[in-house]
Amino acid sequence: MSDYQHILVSREAGVVRVTMNRPERRNALSAAMLTELRAAFEEIAATDASGVVLAGNGPVFSAGHDFADVVARNADEVRELLALCTDLMRAIQFAPQVVVARVHGLATAAGCQLVASCDLAVAAESAGFALPGGKGGWFCHTPAVPVARAIGRKRLMEMALTGDVVDAATAGEWGLVNRVVPDAGLDTAVDELLARATRGSRDSKAMGKATLYSQLDRPETDAYEIAVQVMAATSQSPAAKEGMTAFLEKRPPVWPD
Amino acid sequence: MSDYQHILVSREAGVVRVTMNRPERRNALSAAMLTELRAAFEEIAATDASGVVLAGNGPVFSAGHDFADVVARNADEVRELLALCTDLMRAIQFAPQVVVARVHGLATAAGCQLVASCDLAVAAESAGFALPGGKGGWFCHTPAVPVARAIGRKRLMEMALTGDVVDAATAGEWGLVNRVVPDAGLDTAVDELLARATRGSRDSKAMGKATLYSQLDRPETDAYEIAVQVMAATSQSPAAKEGMTAFLEKRPPVWPD
Amino acid sequence: MSDYQHILVSREAGVVRVTMNRPERRNALSAAMLTELRAAFEEIAATDASGVVLAGNGPVFSAGHDFADVVARNADEVRELLALCTDLMRAIQFAPQVVVARVHGLATAAGCQLVASCDLAVAAESAGFALPGGKGGWFCHTPAVPVARAIGRKRLMEMALTGDVVDAATAGEWGLVNRVVPDAGLDTAVDELLARATRGSRDSKAMGKATLYSQLDRPETDAYEIAVQVMAATSQSPAAKEGMTAFLEKRPPVWPD
Repeated sequence: MSDYQHILVSREAGVVRVTMNRPERRNALSAAMLTELRAAFEEIAATDASGVVLAGNGPVFSAGHDFADVVARNADEVRELLALCTDLMRAIQFAPQVVVARVHGLATAAGCQLVASCDLAVAAESAGFALPGGKGGWFCHTPAVPVARAIGRKRLMEMALTGDVVDAATAGEWGLVNRVVPDAGLDTAVDELLARATRGSRDSKAMGKATLYSQLDRPETDAYEIAVQVMAATSQSPAAKEGMTAFLEKRPPVWPD
Repeated sequence: MSDYQHILVSREAGVVRVTMNRPERRNALSAAMLTELRAAFEEIAATDASGVVLAGNGPVFSAGHDFADVVARNADEVRELLALCTDLMRAIQFAPQVVVARVHGLATAAGCQLVASCDLAVAAESAGFALPGGKGGWFCHTPAVPVARAIGRKRLMEMALTGDVVDAATAGEWGLVNRVVPDAGLDTAVDELLARATRGSRDSKAMGKATLYSQLDRPETDAYEIAVQVMAATSQSPAAKEGMTAFLEKRPPVWPD
Repeated sequence: MSDYQHILVSREAGVVRVTMNRPERRNALSAAMLTELRAAFEEIAATDASGVVLAGNGPVFSAGHDFADVVARNADEVRELLALCTDLMRAIQFAPQVVVARVHGLATAAGCQLVASCDLAVAAESAGFALPGGKGGWFCHTPAVPVARAIGRKRLMEMALTGDVVDAATAGEWGLVNRVVPDAGLDTAVDELLARATRGSRDSKAMGKATLYSQLDRPETDAYEIAVQVMAATSQSPAAKEGMTAFLEKRPPVWPD
């Protein structure tokens, strides 16, 4: 993988670890950091890796946008920054890899948006989540987009309007994260969940993810139209044929990719 | 009711029981089985029954599509099968009866889709739910459509990407089923819930169900347009008039149908 | 504030209390009551208040539409009543204030719709919630619109089809209310939540609320388009500038409005 300045990217077997590495800035998402993250996900998309862990070095996962990078921008320049940030969220959702957020410390504002945008998320029990624009200043309009789609409406309103920190256990009950584990077991839990989520054919899962995000927030009739087309087309794929044949022959499947 | 080859259909008072009856194939949804289920729901729709219990004979509720019936089909033939399956799901949702899934053993892939598509669901505590395409082969694109609309996004991703079995208690917490009960109490719990859900006017409830499914996944403004029109029109129905009059006269209602 | 006949409206500091005051009619939402509630929210919208508590005097929060006011109406007249009711729900959602429902006793039918339509809700532990049209007569088509958007699909179906009362603890688990507290602590809990939700700039929160309701039930791509535009524009607001500057200067913010 390429070298980056603000993030660490390493690969071991089929898993790439992307680690935000501005601990002294609490992994604030400057334009430079966002650009590198987007580039990394684009680079990873072109590899045969099957999973990605998104993590942060230092005391927190990510504190969201870097106000030092925002405060001097005019509206057009802020729009450009937010478009870049939205691009990153889409790059994560439409990456062919399964992406798991490894959350420790705090995930706030666009940091919380990152957690909501990853396919899966595992949180340390001491972690917290917040949309701090609710405390009064710049409202968390864009972070609220994927957070609203992960948790219920009343919970979204509470996070967005109060800005208060939601603890990990509550985030688990609300469906913002998949697992809440003792801090010492965070890496193990992330690896275990990702191993299960990346079994089998990478291509099948990549198509699966893309189709899920395409159908999730459409009317059910439209969603079925998409899903039926994709499921019929993929029925002829080597992975689908092998899965069905192995099942019928009562033997373990041997995935083609 | 007609005789069927792969399913059992019987009626007692206002409740029809539809039982998938291919225990040796774990109630796999072959084209023949799907065709019969769809025909049964169409036949039931034309009766004055108020409720339907959908159940499965043998060790599991349903294992989903029958790979023996899929593996030799080309993409067009698979599309035809999936369109039939989608038709069945819609027939359940737009049936004038309240439909409860009685889930024991496993409900996997299109079997899990059936549970998500029924209006209500009661599970034995030993039951499990899975989208096993996540284990690697043919991804559960179409089952994910109604499952996504019953549970949260992160939970959907976990089910769809891992393929692992979710136990009944978890399915209850996530909202995939309404009740989780001791195995020995499954029939009693199904009957009790269905009795409460079928009280009153069958026509009122049939219109209610259809309107709910029409408005559920639309923007709120569009949903209100539909609901206001239907609610105004039905305010003149014998059931609505009787309900309001009985309430105002402080007497029990006598439903007209 | 103006004087009203069916509701009490009072203001203390930044918080307006709107209290439905037809205890002998269980705060049934007659056309007169709905008209006054809508007028009150419109009047409040033009003030600099930052929060609203919606409550009910007497044994229950609200029993929903007043059948005495419905039963003699023809379909067009009912449609007019429902349009008025829908207007009130939108007035609450698009009010520039944060609106909290204070729920005691029962919130049924359009009373339950009110709870679902408020931004936040706190319930006494003895409170209950129902869509009683499910018991048989006039189906709760319009109340189901916002209730469906607060809780999961299977839970909505259960409430709408059975008409049974859901207790407060369950309503909390399902996300219909934010807090469930001992009856004696209801006012304290409402005030505490509202105080946290109204911190900071009122204008920022008003824009935040409006944007949330505009994006919540759209496809994620459309939602981002809305949120990015608003977030870029509001980055230049005095509140956003002050929030960012105070953060960077490590001092408490002094909100401009």
